[in-house]
Amino acid sequence: MSQDSAVNYLDDHYKRFQNELVELLRIPSISHDPAHKADIDKAAHWLADKLHAMGADHVELLPTEGHPVVYGEAIVSPSAPTVLIYGHYDVQSPEPLADWKSQPFEPEIRGENLYARGASDMKGQTLASLNAAEAILKTGNLPLNLKFMLEGEEEIGSAHLNDFLIQHREKLKSDFSLNTDAGGMPDADTPSICYSLRGGAGFTLTIHGPAQDLHSGEYGGVIQNPIHVLSRLIAGLHDEQGRVTLPGFYEKARVIDEEEHAELAALPFDDEFFLKHSGAPALWGEPEFLPAERVGARPTIEVVMFSAGQPKAAIPASASARFLFRLVPDQSADDAHQQFRTYLETHAPPTVTWDLQFRPGGSGIIVDRKSPPTLAMKSALKTAFGREPIFQRVGGGIGAVLMLKGTLGIDSVLTGFSLYDDNFHGPNEKLHLPTWQKGMNALVHFFHELAK
Amino acid sequence: MSQDSAVNYLDDHYKRFQNELVELLRIPSISHDPAHKADIDKAAHWLADKLHAMGADHVELLPTEGHPVVYGEAIVSPSAPTVLIYGHYDVQSPEPLADWKSQPFEPEIRGENLYARGASDMKGQTLASLNAAEAILKTGNLPLNLKFMLEGEEEIGSAHLNDFLIQHREKLKSDFSLNTDAGGMPDADTPSICYSLRGGAGFTLTIHGPAQDLHSGEYGGVIQNPIHVLSRLIAGLHDEQGRVTLPGFYEKARVIDEEEHAELAALPFDDEFFLKHSGAPALWGEPEFLPAERVGARPTIEVVMFSAGQPKAAIPASASARFLFRLVPDQSADDAHQQFRTYLETHAPPTVTWDLQFRPGGSGIIVDRKSPPTLAMKSALKTAFGREPIFQRVGGGIGAVLMLKGTLGIDSVLTGFSLYDDNFHGPNEKLHLPTWQKGMNALVHFFHELAK
Repeated sequence: MSQDSAVNYLDDHYKRFQNELVELLRIPSISHDPAHKADIDKAAHWLADKLHAMGADHVELLPTEGHPVVYGEAIVSPSAPTVLIYGHYDVQSPEPLADWKSQPFEPEIRGENLYARGASDMKGQTLASLNAAEAILKTGNLPLNLKFMLEGEEEIGSAHLNDFLIQHREKLKSDFSLNTDAGGMPDADTPSICYSLRGGAGFTLTIHGPAQDLHSGEYGGVIQNPIHVLSRLIAGLHDEQGRVTLPGFYEKARVIDEEEHAELAALPFDDEFFLKHSGAPALWGEPEFLPAERVGARPTIEVVMFSAGQPKAAIPASASARFLFRLVPDQSADDAHQQFRTYLETHAPPTVTWDLQFRPGGSGIIVDRKSPPTLAMKSALKTAFGREPIFQRVGGGIGAVLMLKGTLGIDSVLTGFSLYDDNFHGPNEKLHLPTWQKGMNALVHFFHELAK
Repeated sequence: MSQDSAVNYLDDHYKRFQNELVELLRIPSISHDPAHKADIDKAAHWLADKLHAMGADHVELLPTEGHPVVYGEAIVSPSAPTVLIYGHYDVQSPEPLADWKSQPFEPEIRGENLYARGASDMKGQTLASLNAAEAILKTGNLPLNLKFMLEGEEEIGSAHLNDFLIQHREKLKSDFSLNTDAGGMPDADTPSICYSLRGGAGFTLTIHGPAQDLHSGEYGGVIQNPIHVLSRLIAGLHDEQGRVTLPGFYEKARVIDEEEHAELAALPFDDEFFLKHSGAPALWGEPEFLPAERVGARPTIEVVMFSAGQPKAAIPASASARFLFRLVPDQSADDAHQQFRTYLETHAPPTVTWDLQFRPGGSGIIVDRKSPPTLAMKSALKTAFGREPIFQRVGGGIGAVLMLKGTLGIDSVLTGFSLYDDNFHGPNEKLHLPTWQKGMNALVHFFHELAK
C-alpha cells in the first residue's frame, strides 16, 4: 500500500528483474533488417508476457504496417489520472562487430555495467518503467491508471506509429505520457529531465556521372569522378568553424534567451565533458555557442554514410551519401529540404546528374518545465538520487513524443537512466546497473507523487 | 610454311578458338579475392594445357609469393630473334553485379560481341597472341624463338612479378616483349600502337575522429564528422576546372612538345569521343590540354572508393578512401607520396587523426616509336586492318612493361585489340569478335615481319 512497500518490492525482486533484462537483450530485435523479423516478434511476445505477469489487462499485440505495438493497461478508476507508459523494444544494428568486446546479443556484466545492444537504448529503460509499474500493481491500489504502449520501430523513425495513434485514439486516451527514452544523465549521481528534443530530416543524395564504371587510367583526366563531386558538395555544407552554410538554414531556429543560456552554461556539459565521452582529439562547431547549445538548441547536418566505388582501378558510375539534419524549434523539415535542393541546384556541376530522396522527420520540440507531471518527476528524482535533477535539452529526436503531442495532444514527461558514455548506437553499448536500479525507485516515487 | 598458310590456319580453327575463349572466361579468376584462389589455379592450368597443345616446350607453372606465372617456350635457333609474349589470366571483380545484362562468368554472344568479365581485359587479348603463335608453330618453322609469360596478378598491381623477373632472369632472356594489354582502339577500323603509359601510386587514407561511433543527435554539433573531414580533404585536391592543387604535383611532368601536341590533336580522341564512350553529361579536366593529353600525358588523381558509416543515426568513428594517382614521365611515386603527406599535414584539422598507406606503383614510360619491332607491328597492323595504325598514349599503367624494362632491360611492343567501349573494369565488359579475329591475323603478320 505504501511507497515503502513498493520500493521494498523492487529490492526483493531486483535479481529477477536483472535476469529478465538479460533474457530480453538476448533477442536481436533489429528493426531495420527484415532478416530479424522473427526476433522482433519474439521480443514483442516476451513483453506481452511480462505485462500479463505484472497484472496488466487487455494485453495484446496490435499490428501496424510494420512491426507490432505491444499494448496493455491497468485501469483503477475513471476519475484517476492516466499515464501512458511509452517504450520501444527494437534496437539498432550492432555493426561494426569487430569493435565489441563481448558479443552484442550475449549480455555480459563487467564491473557495474551490463554490456549488450539495447541495454541502454532502450530495453533497460523500458523494463525500468515496467518493473516500477509492477511494484505499484503488486503492492497496493494506487489511484492511478496505467496504459502501456511499446513500439518496435523507434530505431527506424517510428515509421508507422502516427497511423497507429490515429487508429487507436480512444484506447490511448491519457493525461500524459511517461517516456524514459530521453537518455543521457551526465554522470551516475545527476538525474535529469529533458525539456527539449531536436527533430530531423533524412536525405539520400546520389550523384550520377558516367553511364558505367570506367577504367581510371583510360578516363582519368576527362571525366569528373562522382566521388569527387559528392565530396565537394559535402565539404561546401560547412565553413571551417562548423557553421552550416545553407542560406536561410538558421533563420527560423528559435533564439536562446539569456535566462536559458545562463542555465545551460551551468550544466556539466562543457568541452571537457564532450571530449571525455567522445574520445575525439578536439571539438568543433559554431564557436559562438556553448557545447550544450550546439547539441541541444542549434540545428546540425551530419553525413551518416558515404558509399561509393570498389577496391579496383575504376571511376565509379555513381556515389551516394545519407544525410541526417537535426532541426530545432521553429524550423521545418520542408524548409530544410528546399534549402538543400536549392544548394544542389546551385552547386552541382554539369558533369553529373543528381537525385535527392527526402525522408521528413519530426520538428524539434520544447515541453513545459512547470507542468504538474514534470514537477512530480523532479521531486521523485530528488528522492531517489538525493539530488535535484538538471533540466537539459537533448540533441536526439523521439518521434513518439512529437506524434503524441501533434496527433493526440498528449504531453510527455521525459527522463531516462542512461549515462552519456553508454554508447547507444555504437559498439559496447552498456547499462550502468546501480543507476538503473535507482531509476526504478524514482519511477515508483513518481507514480506515488502523481497519485497524491 | 608461308604467311598465307598461317593465316588460313587461323580461319580454319576460328570456331575452336572462340569456344576455347568461352571456356577460359567461365573461370572467375579474380586475383584480389582469396576466395577465388582455386579459380586462379584453374585458369593457370587451363593455359598451361593450351601451351602444351600448341606445341610449346618446357611448359610449367612457376610459383611466386602470390599467384603462379604460366611459362612455356618454343625455341627454334639460338641465333633467331626471341620474343617474350606477355599476357595475364586474372580479372577484376565484376561488381556491381546488378548492372550486368548477362552473368559476368557466363559468356554470352550478343550481335558481334562476346560479353564476360575478362573478355577484353585480357583473356581475349592473351588468347589472340597464343592463337597467332599456334598458327606459326603448326604451319612451319619460322626463324623466331617464342617465350610465353602469363601472369595472374596484373589486376592487383603485378605484386610479385618483379621478384619473378629477378629470379628467372636467364630463362626470360629475350630481344623484346609483345604486350597486347595496351588496349583501346578508338573504333573497329583503326588499329593502334601505344608508345606511352601512365604509372601509378596507390594510397589508402583513413580519418579517425571519435573513439567509437556516436549518436548523431547526442554529439552532432560538437564533434567533427570524419566523413566531413575526408570529403573536405578530397574536395581540396582539385580546383574547379579539374587541376590538381597539390603543390609541386605537375612540376616534373614531362612537357608535351609541339610536334607531339600536333600528332595527338590529329587523333580521334576528342571531346565527342570521350562523351560518347563514357556516357557522362559533360567532360572536365585541365582546360589548357587536349582530352588525349589529359588521359595520356598528364597526371591525375582519382578516389576509387569512399567507404564510411552505416545506414543509422551515427557519426562514424572513422572514414576511409582509396586513392589512385596516375603519373607520367618524369614524375616519381615517392614525390607524389611526399606531396600528398605534406598536403594532409597542412590541411587535416585538429579534430581528427589520420593514417596514410602508400602502395608505390611504376613510373610512367615512353617507348621508342622507330625501333624495328615497332615498325614490324606497324606494317603488320596495316596489312591486317588495311589502315595505318595510330600512335597513342594510353592513360593506364602496365606494371609488366615497366618491370621488364627496369629489371631485365627489355622493351615492349604495345598494342591490343580492345575497343574503347569494351568496359573493362566495368559491368558488361565485352570483346568485339571481328576485331579480335583481325588482331590474330595481325599478330601472324607481325611474327613473319620479325622473321624477315
